[in-house]
Amino acid sequence: MPVYTVTMSRGTLNGETKAALAAEITTIHSAVNHVPSTYVNVLFNELAPSNVYTDGKPAHPLIINGWVRTGHSDEQTTALVTQVADAATRITGIPAERVLVIIGNSPARFAIEGGRILPDPGQELAWLAATTEQSSGSR
Amino acid sequence: MPVYTVTMSRGTLNGETKAALAAEITTIHSAVNHVPSTYVNVLFNELAPSNVYTDGKPAHPLIINGWVRTGHSDEQTTALVTQVADAATRITGIPAERVLVIIGNSPARFAIEGGRILPDPGQELAWLAATTEQSSGSR
Amino acid sequence: MPVYTVTMSRGTLNGETKAALAAEITTIHSAVNHVPSTYVNVLFNELAPSNVYTDGKPAHPLIINGWVRTGHSDEQTTALVTQVADAATRITGIPAERVLVIIGNSPARFAIEGGRILPDPGQELAWLAATTEQSSGSR
Repeated sequence: MPVYTVTMSRGTLNGETKAALAAEITTIHSAVNHVPSTYVNVLFNELAPSNVYTDGKPAHPLIINGWVRTGHSDEQTTALVTQVADAATRITGIPAERVLVIIGNSPARFAIEGGRILPDPGQELAWLAATTEQSSGSR
Repeated sequence: MPVYTVTMSRGTLNGETKAALAAEITTIHSAVNHVPSTYVNVLFNELAPSNVYTDGKPAHPLIINGWVRTGHSDEQTTALVTQVADAATRITGIPAERVLVIIGNSPARFAIEGGRILPDPGQELAWLAATTEQSSGSR
Repeated sequence: MPVYTVTMSRGTLNGETKAALAAEITTIHSAVNHVPSTYVNVLFNELAPSNVYTDGKPAHPLIINGWVRTGHSDEQTTALVTQVADAATRITGIPAERVLVIIGNSPARFAIEGGRILPDPGQELAWLAATTEQSSGSR
Protein backbone atom coordinates (compact mmCIF):
# COMPACT_ATOMS: atom_id res chain seq x y z
CA MET A 1 0.00 0.00 0.00
CA PRO A 2 2.54 2.66 0.95
CA VAL A 3 5.17 3.97 -1.45
CA TYR A 4 8.39 5.68 -0.39
CA THR A 5 10.46 7.48 -3.02
CA VAL A 6 14.05 8.35 -2.13
CA THR A 7 15.34 11.11 -4.41
CA MET A 8 19.00 12.09 -4.63
CA SER A 9 21.93 12.74 -6.96
CA ARG A 10 23.03 9.68 -8.92
CA GLY A 11 25.84 7.82 -7.20
CA THR A 12 25.05 9.10 -3.71
CA LEU A 13 24.30 5.59 -2.43
CA ASN A 14 25.70 2.26 -3.60
CA GLY A 15 23.56 -0.82 -4.16
CA GLU A 16 24.22 -2.30 -0.75
CA THR A 17 23.23 0.91 1.03
CA LYS A 18 20.07 1.26 -1.05
CA ALA A 19 19.06 -2.32 -0.23
CA ALA A 20 19.71 -1.74 3.48
CA LEU A 21 17.71 1.50 3.50
CA ALA A 22 14.81 -0.10 1.59
CA ALA A 23 14.74 -2.97 4.09
CA GLU A 24 14.82 -0.64 7.10
CA ILE A 25 12.10 1.69 5.80
CA THR A 26 9.97 -1.41 5.14
CA THR A 27 10.49 -2.70 8.67
CA ILE A 28 9.72 0.68 10.23
CA HIS A 29 6.59 1.25 8.17
CA SER A 30 5.27 -2.21 8.83
CA ALA A 31 5.76 -1.83 12.60
CA VAL A 32 4.41 1.72 12.96
CA ASN A 33 1.48 1.59 10.53
CA HIS A 34 0.48 -2.08 10.95
CA VAL A 35 0.85 -3.04 7.28
CA PRO A 36 2.39 -6.38 6.22
CA SER A 37 5.87 -5.73 4.82
CA THR A 38 4.82 -7.38 1.54
CA TYR A 39 2.80 -4.23 0.78
CA VAL A 40 5.62 -1.71 1.32
CA ASN A 41 7.28 -0.26 -1.80
CA VAL A 42 10.54 1.70 -1.76
CA LEU A 43 11.80 3.41 -4.92
CA PHE A 44 15.07 5.25 -5.56
CA ASN A 45 14.89 8.09 -8.07
CA GLU A 46 18.46 9.05 -8.98
CA LEU A 47 18.86 12.41 -10.70
CA ALA A 48 21.84 13.81 -12.58
CA PRO A 49 23.96 15.77 -10.05
CA SER A 50 23.37 18.90 -12.13
CA ASN A 51 19.61 18.48 -11.55
CA VAL A 52 19.57 18.91 -7.77
CA TYR A 53 19.54 22.35 -6.13
CA THR A 54 19.22 23.67 -2.59
CA ASP A 55 19.24 27.44 -2.03
CA GLY A 56 19.54 27.88 -5.81
CA LYS A 57 22.91 26.10 -5.87
CA PRO A 58 23.92 22.53 -6.77
CA ALA A 59 23.52 20.43 -3.62
CA HIS A 60 23.19 16.89 -2.27
CA PRO A 61 20.04 16.52 -0.17
CA LEU A 62 18.44 13.14 0.45
CA ILE A 63 14.68 13.62 0.05
CA ILE A 64 12.28 10.85 1.05
CA ASN A 65 8.64 11.21 0.05
CA GLY A 66 6.21 8.72 1.49
CA TRP A 67 2.56 8.14 0.70
CA VAL A 68 0.15 6.64 3.23
CA ARG A 69 -3.61 6.29 3.53
CA THR A 70 -5.37 9.17 5.31
CA GLY A 71 -6.55 8.33 8.82
CA HIS A 72 -3.43 7.27 10.67
CA SER A 73 -3.03 9.38 13.82
CA ASP A 74 -0.78 12.43 13.78
CA GLU A 75 1.39 10.76 16.46
CA GLN A 76 1.79 7.68 14.25
CA THR A 77 2.79 9.74 11.22
CA THR A 78 5.23 11.85 13.22
CA ALA A 79 6.78 8.64 14.62
CA LEU A 80 7.06 7.36 11.07
CA VAL A 81 8.95 10.39 9.70
CA THR A 82 11.20 10.54 12.76
CA GLN A 83 12.19 6.88 12.54
CA VAL A 84 12.64 6.97 8.76
CA ALA A 85 14.85 10.08 8.99
CA ASP A 86 16.93 8.52 11.78
CA ALA A 87 17.36 5.34 9.72
CA ALA A 88 18.39 7.33 6.66
CA THR A 89 21.19 9.09 8.52
CA ARG A 90 22.29 5.94 10.37
CA ILE A 91 22.41 3.76 7.22
CA THR A 92 23.69 6.26 4.64
CA GLY A 93 25.95 8.39 6.83
CA ILE A 94 24.36 11.52 5.37
CA PRO A 95 24.00 14.10 8.16
CA ALA A 96 20.47 14.89 9.38
CA GLU A 97 20.85 18.46 8.06
CA ARG A 98 20.64 17.13 4.49
CA VAL A 99 17.84 14.61 5.11
CA LEU A 100 14.23 15.68 4.48
CA VAL A 101 11.33 13.25 4.95
CA ILE A 102 7.79 14.19 3.90
CA ILE A 103 4.66 12.05 4.20
CA GLY A 104 1.68 12.78 1.96
CA ASN A 105 -1.68 11.07 2.13
CA SER A 106 -4.95 10.40 0.30
CA PRO A 107 -8.14 8.67 1.42
CA ALA A 108 -7.85 4.88 1.11
CA ARG A 109 -10.74 4.91 -1.36
CA PHE A 110 -8.57 6.95 -3.75
CA ALA A 111 -6.16 3.99 -4.12
CA ILE A 112 -6.36 0.44 -5.42
CA GLU A 113 -4.04 -2.57 -5.23
CA GLY A 114 -4.54 -6.15 -6.31
CA GLY A 115 -7.73 -5.01 -8.01
CA ARG A 116 -9.34 -3.88 -4.74
CA ILE A 117 -9.84 -0.45 -3.16
CA LEU A 118 -7.52 -0.09 -0.14
CA PRO A 119 -8.95 -0.43 3.39
CA ASP A 120 -9.11 2.53 5.76
CA PRO A 121 -6.50 2.45 8.55
CA GLY A 122 -7.70 -0.06 11.17
CA GLN A 123 -9.56 -2.19 8.58
CA GLU A 124 -6.46 -4.01 7.25
CA LEU A 125 -7.20 -7.42 8.78
CA ALA A 126 -10.57 -7.87 7.06
CA TRP A 127 -9.11 -6.65 3.78
CA LEU A 128 -6.13 -9.00 4.02
CA ALA A 129 -8.35 -11.95 4.99
CA ALA A 130 -10.48 -11.37 1.88
CA THR A 131 -7.29 -11.28 -0.22
CA THR A 132 -6.27 -14.67 1.08
CA GLU A 133 -9.71 -16.17 0.43
CA GLN A 134 -9.71 -14.72 -3.06
CA SER A 135 -6.27 -16.20 -3.81
CA SER A 136 -7.22 -19.60 -2.40
CA GLY A 137 -10.50 -19.60 -4.30
CA SER A 138 -8.81 -18.85 -7.60
CA ARG A 139 -6.48 -21.81 -7.41
CA MET B 1 -4.93 19.67 -15.62
CA PRO B 2 -4.38 16.15 -14.30
CA VAL B 3 -1.01 14.43 -14.31
CA TYR B 4 -0.52 10.67 -14.10
CA THR B 5 2.96 9.31 -13.43
CA VAL B 6 3.57 5.63 -14.13
CA THR B 7 6.65 4.42 -12.25
CA MET B 8 8.32 1.06 -12.93
CA SER B 9 11.61 -0.67 -13.65
CA ARG B 10 13.21 0.36 -16.93
CA GLY B 11 12.26 -1.98 -19.76
CA THR B 12 9.03 -3.20 -18.19
CA LEU B 13 6.93 -1.75 -21.01
CA ASN B 14 7.83 -1.21 -24.65
CA GLY B 15 7.00 1.99 -26.55
CA GLU B 16 3.82 0.63 -28.06
CA THR B 17 2.45 -0.47 -24.70
CA LYS B 18 3.33 2.86 -23.10
CA ALA B 19 1.53 4.73 -25.89
CA ALA B 20 -1.54 2.48 -25.53
CA LEU B 21 -1.63 2.93 -21.76
CA ALA B 22 -1.21 6.71 -22.03
CA ALA B 23 -4.08 6.85 -24.52
CA GLU B 24 -6.37 4.71 -22.37
CA ILE B 25 -5.68 6.61 -19.13
CA THR B 26 -6.41 9.82 -21.05
CA THR B 27 -9.72 8.47 -22.34
CA ILE B 28 -10.76 7.21 -18.90
CA HIS B 29 -9.84 10.42 -17.11
CA SER B 30 -11.60 12.57 -19.66
CA ALA B 31 -14.81 10.51 -19.42
CA VAL B 32 -14.92 10.15 -15.63
CA ASN B 33 -13.74 13.60 -14.56
CA HIS B 34 -15.20 15.67 -17.45
CA VAL B 35 -11.89 17.20 -18.56
CA PRO B 36 -11.01 17.60 -22.28
CA SER B 37 -8.39 15.01 -23.21
CA THR B 38 -6.06 17.81 -24.36
CA TYR B 39 -5.48 18.61 -20.67
CA VAL B 40 -4.49 15.09 -19.56
CA ASN B 41 -0.76 14.41 -19.05
CA VAL B 42 0.71 10.92 -18.65
CA LEU B 43 4.40 10.49 -17.73
CA PHE B 44 6.48 7.32 -17.48
CA ASN B 45 9.26 7.40 -14.89
CA GLU B 46 11.53 4.42 -15.57
CA LEU B 47 13.90 3.51 -12.75
CA ALA B 48 16.94 1.24 -12.80
CA PRO B 49 15.73 -2.28 -11.87
CA SER B 50 18.03 -2.13 -8.84
CA ASN B 51 16.12 0.93 -7.60
CA VAL B 52 12.72 -0.71 -7.09
CA TYR B 53 11.87 -2.65 -3.91
CA THR B 54 8.77 -4.30 -2.48
CA ASP B 55 8.99 -5.97 0.93
CA GLY B 56 12.65 -4.90 1.09
CA LYS B 57 13.55 -6.99 -1.96
CA PRO B 58 14.04 -6.10 -5.64
CA ALA B 59 10.59 -6.26 -7.28
CA HIS B 60 8.57 -5.19 -10.30
CA PRO B 61 5.46 -3.25 -9.25
CA LEU B 62 3.66 -0.88 -11.61
CA ILE B 63 2.81 2.23 -9.60
CA ILE B 64 0.52 4.88 -11.05
CA ASN B 65 0.24 8.18 -9.19
CA GLY B 66 -2.43 10.58 -10.37
CA TRP B 67 -3.09 14.16 -9.36
CA VAL B 68 -6.54 15.73 -9.63
CA ARG B 69 -8.22 18.88 -8.33
CA THR B 70 -9.90 18.55 -4.93
CA GLY B 71 -13.69 18.42 -5.09
CA HIS B 72 -14.50 15.49 -7.33
CA SER B 73 -16.84 13.11 -5.50
CA ASP B 74 -15.43 10.08 -3.71
CA GLU B 75 -17.44 7.84 -6.05
CA GLN B 76 -15.88 9.55 -9.08
CA THR B 77 -12.35 9.14 -7.73
CA THR B 78 -12.91 5.51 -6.81
CA ALA B 79 -14.29 4.89 -10.32
CA LEU B 80 -11.17 6.55 -11.70
CA VAL B 81 -8.66 4.37 -9.81
CA THR B 82 -10.66 1.22 -10.55
CA GLN B 83 -10.82 1.87 -14.28
CA VAL B 84 -7.17 2.97 -14.50
CA ALA B 85 -5.99 -0.14 -12.62
CA ASP B 86 -8.14 -2.40 -14.84
CA ALA B 87 -6.73 -0.73 -17.95
CA ALA B 88 -3.15 -1.12 -16.67
CA THR B 89 -3.55 -4.87 -16.22
CA ARG B 90 -5.46 -5.33 -19.48
CA ILE B 91 -2.96 -3.35 -21.58
CA THR B 92 0.34 -4.32 -19.95
CA GLY B 93 -0.47 -7.89 -18.92
CA ILE B 94 0.94 -7.16 -15.45
CA PRO B 95 -1.25 -8.97 -12.89
CA ALA B 96 -3.46 -6.82 -10.65
CA GLU B 97 -1.43 -7.95 -7.61
CA ARG B 98 1.52 -5.86 -8.83
CA VAL B 99 -0.51 -2.81 -9.89
CA LEU B 100 -1.00 0.05 -7.40
CA VAL B 101 -2.93 3.21 -8.36
CA ILE B 102 -3.01 6.22 -6.03
CA ILE B 103 -4.80 9.53 -6.62
CA GLY B 104 -3.66 12.63 -4.76
CA ASN B 105 -5.33 16.02 -4.88
CA SER B 106 -4.93 19.72 -4.14
CA PRO B 107 -7.41 22.61 -4.32
CA ALA B 108 -7.75 23.92 -7.89
CA ARG B 109 -6.51 27.30 -6.70
CA PHE B 110 -3.16 25.68 -5.84
CA ALA B 111 -2.54 24.94 -9.54
CA ILE B 112 -2.11 26.97 -12.71
CA GLU B 113 -2.05 26.11 -16.41
CA GLY B 114 -1.94 28.30 -19.48
CA GLY B 115 -1.27 31.20 -17.13
CA ARG B 116 -4.62 30.83 -15.33
CA ILE B 117 -5.57 29.32 -11.97
CA LEU B 118 -7.46 26.04 -12.55
CA PRO B 119 -11.27 25.94 -12.15
CA ASP B 120 -12.91 24.00 -9.32
CA PRO B 121 -14.56 20.75 -10.43
CA GLY B 122 -17.87 21.64 -12.11
CA GLN B 123 -16.56 25.03 -13.32
CA GLU B 124 -14.63 23.67 -16.30
CA LEU B 125 -16.97 24.95 -19.05
CA ALA B 126 -16.65 28.61 -18.07
CA TRP B 127 -12.89 28.26 -17.69
CA LEU B 128 -12.51 26.58 -21.08
CA ALA B 129 -14.76 29.14 -22.77
CA ALA B 130 -12.55 31.93 -21.43
CA THR B 131 -9.49 30.09 -22.75
CA THR B 132 -10.95 29.98 -26.24
CA GLU B 133 -11.84 33.68 -26.15
CA GLN B 134 -8.36 34.51 -24.92
CA SER B 135 -6.76 32.48 -27.73
CA SER B 136 -9.04 33.98 -30.39
CA GLY B 137 -8.39 37.46 -29.07
CA SER B 138 -4.64 37.04 -29.21
CA ARG B 139 -4.62 36.02 -32.86
CA MET C 1 11.47 22.61 3.79
CA PRO C 2 9.75 22.93 0.42
CA VAL C 3 10.60 20.77 -2.57
CA TYR C 4 9.86 21.70 -6.17
CA THR C 5 10.21 19.04 -8.87
CA VAL C 6 10.36 20.20 -12.48
CA THR C 7 9.48 17.33 -14.83
CA MET C 8 10.05 17.47 -18.58
CA SER C 9 11.52 15.67 -21.58
CA ARG C 10 15.29 15.29 -21.42
CA GLY C 11 17.12 18.07 -23.20
CA THR C 12 14.29 20.61 -22.90
CA LEU C 13 16.42 22.95 -20.77
CA ASN C 14 20.18 23.44 -20.76
CA GLY C 15 22.24 23.68 -17.58
CA GLU C 16 22.26 27.46 -17.48
CA THR C 17 18.48 27.68 -17.81
CA LYS C 18 17.95 25.03 -15.12
CA ALA C 19 20.24 26.95 -12.74
CA ALA C 20 18.40 30.21 -13.46
CA LEU C 21 14.99 28.61 -12.93
CA ALA C 22 16.11 26.94 -9.68
CA ALA C 23 17.42 30.28 -8.40
CA GLU C 24 14.24 32.14 -9.32
CA ILE C 25 11.88 29.53 -7.80
CA THR C 26 13.99 29.71 -4.64
CA THR C 27 13.77 33.51 -4.49
CA ILE C 28 9.99 33.48 -5.09
CA HIS C 29 9.29 30.78 -2.53
CA SER C 30 11.45 32.45 0.10
CA ALA C 31 9.69 35.81 -0.39
CA VAL C 32 6.10 34.52 -0.57
CA ASN C 33 6.20 31.80 2.09
CA HIS C 34 8.74 33.38 4.49
CA VAL C 35 11.23 30.49 4.45
CA PRO C 36 15.00 31.10 4.33
CA SER C 37 16.28 30.25 0.85
CA THR C 38 18.69 27.71 2.36
CA TYR C 39 15.66 25.45 2.94
CA VAL C 40 14.32 25.51 -0.63
CA ASN C 41 15.03 22.46 -2.82
CA VAL C 42 14.52 22.39 -6.60
CA LEU C 43 14.88 19.12 -8.53
CA PHE C 44 14.76 18.47 -12.27
CA ASN C 45 13.40 15.09 -13.32
CA GLU C 46 14.25 14.59 -16.99
CA LEU C 47 12.31 11.84 -18.75
CA ALA C 48 12.99 10.18 -22.10
CA PRO C 49 11.02 12.14 -24.73
CA SER C 50 9.10 8.93 -25.51
CA ASN C 51 7.87 8.90 -21.89
CA VAL C 52 5.90 12.15 -21.92
CA TYR C 53 2.32 12.32 -23.22
CA THR C 54 -0.40 14.97 -23.36
CA ASP C 55 -3.79 14.04 -24.87
CA GLY C 56 -2.44 10.52 -25.44
CA LYS C 57 0.27 11.78 -27.80
CA PRO C 58 3.99 12.52 -27.31
CA ALA C 59 4.26 16.09 -26.04
CA HIS C 60 6.52 18.59 -24.28
CA PRO C 61 4.84 20.02 -21.20
CA LEU C 62 6.83 21.58 -18.34
CA ILE C 63 5.28 20.31 -15.11
CA ILE C 64 6.32 21.81 -11.77
CA ASN C 65 5.15 20.06 -8.61
CA GLY C 66 5.77 21.83 -5.35
CA TRP C 67 5.30 20.62 -1.80
CA VAL C 68 4.63 23.02 1.08
CA ARG C 69 3.46 22.69 4.67
CA THR C 70 -0.32 22.87 5.19
CA GLY C 71 -1.53 26.14 6.70
CA HIS C 72 -0.33 28.83 4.32
CA SER C 73 -3.28 30.94 3.20
CA ASP C 74 -5.01 30.20 -0.10
CA GLU C 75 -4.00 33.65 -1.32
CA GLN C 76 -0.35 32.93 -0.53
CA THR C 77 -0.42 29.60 -2.36
CA THR C 78 -2.17 31.08 -5.38
CA ALA C 79 0.45 33.86 -5.47
CA LEU C 80 3.13 31.18 -5.32
CA VAL C 81 1.85 29.16 -8.31
CA THR C 82 1.22 32.31 -10.34
CA GLN C 83 4.72 33.69 -9.77
CA VAL C 84 6.40 30.31 -10.33
CA ALA C 85 4.49 29.77 -13.60
CA ASP C 86 5.33 33.30 -14.79
CA ALA C 87 9.00 32.73 -13.97
CA ALA C 88 9.02 29.39 -15.81
CA THR C 89 7.74 30.96 -19.01
CA ARG C 90 9.97 34.02 -18.70
CA ILE C 91 13.16 32.03 -18.04
CA THR C 92 12.63 28.99 -20.28
CA GLY C 93 10.72 30.60 -23.15
CA ILE C 94 8.18 27.77 -22.98
CA PRO C 95 4.71 29.25 -23.62
CA ALA C 96 2.29 29.38 -20.67
CA GLU C 97 -0.01 26.90 -22.46
CA ARG C 98 2.56 24.13 -21.86
CA VAL C 99 3.42 25.11 -18.26
CA LEU C 100 1.51 23.44 -15.40
CA VAL C 101 2.33 24.24 -11.76
CA ILE C 102 0.74 22.24 -8.93
CA ILE C 103 1.30 22.71 -5.18
CA GLY C 104 0.58 19.85 -2.81
CA ASN C 105 0.76 19.99 0.95
CA SER C 106 0.94 17.96 4.16
CA PRO C 107 0.78 19.01 7.81
CA ALA C 108 4.19 20.23 9.05
CA ARG C 109 4.20 17.43 11.62
CA PHE C 110 4.26 14.92 8.75
CA ALA C 111 7.73 16.16 7.71
CA ILE C 112 11.18 16.30 9.29
CA GLU C 113 14.43 18.06 8.37
CA GLY C 114 17.70 18.36 10.23
CA GLY C 115 16.33 15.77 12.65
CA ARG C 116 13.44 17.98 13.77
CA ILE C 117 9.74 18.00 12.89
CA LEU C 118 8.97 21.05 10.72
CA PRO C 119 7.26 24.12 12.26
CA ASP C 120 3.71 25.09 11.29
CA PRO C 121 3.51 28.15 9.00
CA GLY C 122 4.08 31.23 11.18
CA GLN C 123 6.30 29.34 13.65
CA GLU C 124 9.46 29.43 11.51
CA LEU C 125 11.40 31.98 13.59
CA ALA C 126 11.32 29.95 16.81
CA TRP C 127 12.21 26.78 14.89
CA LEU C 128 15.12 28.48 13.12
CA ALA C 129 16.39 30.05 16.35
CA ALA C 130 16.47 26.63 17.98
CA THR C 131 18.41 25.29 14.96
CA THR C 132 21.04 27.98 15.40
CA GLU C 133 21.37 27.31 19.13
CA GLN C 134 21.65 23.59 18.45
CA SER C 135 24.38 24.15 15.86
CA SER C 136 26.30 26.55 18.12
CA GLY C 137 26.00 24.16 21.03
CA SER C 138 27.38 21.27 19.06
CA ARG C 139 30.56 23.11 18.09
